Amino acid sequence: MFVGPELDRLIALLAKLPGLGPRSARRAALALIQKREALLQPLAAALEAAAAAIRPCSVCGNLDSTDPCGTCADDRRDRSVICVVESVGDLWALERAGAHRGLYHVLGGTLSAIGGRGPEDLTIQQLLRRVAGGGVSEVILALGATVDGQATAHLVADRLRPLGVAVTRLAHGVPVGGELGYLDDGTLAAALKARRPA
Amino acid sequence: MFVGPELDRLIALLAKLPGLGPRSARRAALALIQKREALLQPLAAALEAAAAAIRPCSVCGNLDSTDPCGTCADDRRDRSVICVVESVGDLWALERAGAHRGLYHVLGGTLSAIGGRGPEDLTIQQLLRRVAGGGVSEVILALGATVDGQATAHLVADRLRPLGVAVTRLAHGVPVGGELGYLDDGTLAAALKARRPA
Repeated sequence: MFVGPELDRLIALLAKLPGLGPRSARRAALALIQKREALLQPLAAALEAAAAAIRPCSVCGNLDSTDPCGTCADDRRDRSVICVVESVGDLWALERAGAHRGLYHVLGGTLSAIGGRGPEDLTIQQLLRRVAGGGVSEVILALGATVDGQATAHLVADRLRPLGVAVTRLAHGVPVGGELGYLDDGTLAAALKARRPA
Repeated sequence: MFVGPELDRLIALLAKLPGLGPRSARRAALALIQKREALLQPLAAALEAAAAAIRPCSVCGNLDSTDPCGTCADDRRDRSVICVVESVGDLWALERAGAHRGLYHVLGGTLSAIGGRGPEDLTIQQLLRRVAGGGVSEVILALGATVDGQATAHLVADRLRPLGVAVTRLAHGVPVGGELGYLDDGTLAAALKARRPA
């Protein structure tokens, strides 16, 4: 410790952010101190404002300053389709893509034998209640193409089946802009199997 | 904008930090919101504390919560050697390396024809006053091995010469842990020229 304890503490906290290591945390702390009016004070205020305002949506689990969240409250969205995602980050990614015009449901993770997460740690019961409440015709399982993600998708699909709702999953295939030579065998096989008329 | 304005503002400010782009700023904002007690509130408090406490040292230009800074105030350091650096970040890098036991002087940048920075934009006069004040036997120019850095080193060395103080610069050579095959020709030639008995 050769700078004050205030700076050491700031660097230690910045280093906990995803994407920032100890070295980039020091660079960030330096930039913050050197741009006090333009960056540090607004960021401190924005953190306070976000902490005070942002809450999980009691319907879908999204994070927003209103409850229900902006997505759930939006009248222009198709309320008959619910897209199930692992995390709020995945929800945001789909929203940025602008590909889904229905509602969402955040599971809060996947089943994980290693992580010790079972069905009761996910918001599966809440999803079943939403679907049982009526008005839903399709549930899209937008879970990761990992072992845990697919195990979770199987379980959720099984639980949804008695409710008589259509359950779909995302297509596997060649990523847009991707080159075949860099793709793994599983993706290539899936893309070939799911081929469509040109 | 599909999340609240508070979150959009937080993401926009985080994206201004060095090392964070829009995508990693979203991940960081999400982590902050989801770890409210463990991360967001401490970070907001640390920012306020740093803003209130950290000031540039009036002697050397380092940033610290005391003035003179901890380095300048440290009695165990060799006050006869001043290491001149471009930025506080460079000073921190040298301190982490633990290689310099003297004092520092932060120039605040380099001369730059493109950036429109002349000698009057750097703290050269303050450095000359410190050296003229007596007790200094050596000034180490630890400036970048760039065109601007070397031009700045030449100018500072010229100004220091009349004061009768030894002026040195960092050695060029092979980085520790570096492989010769990846090095540029200039560094290889400098390392060969400065070879020493094994």
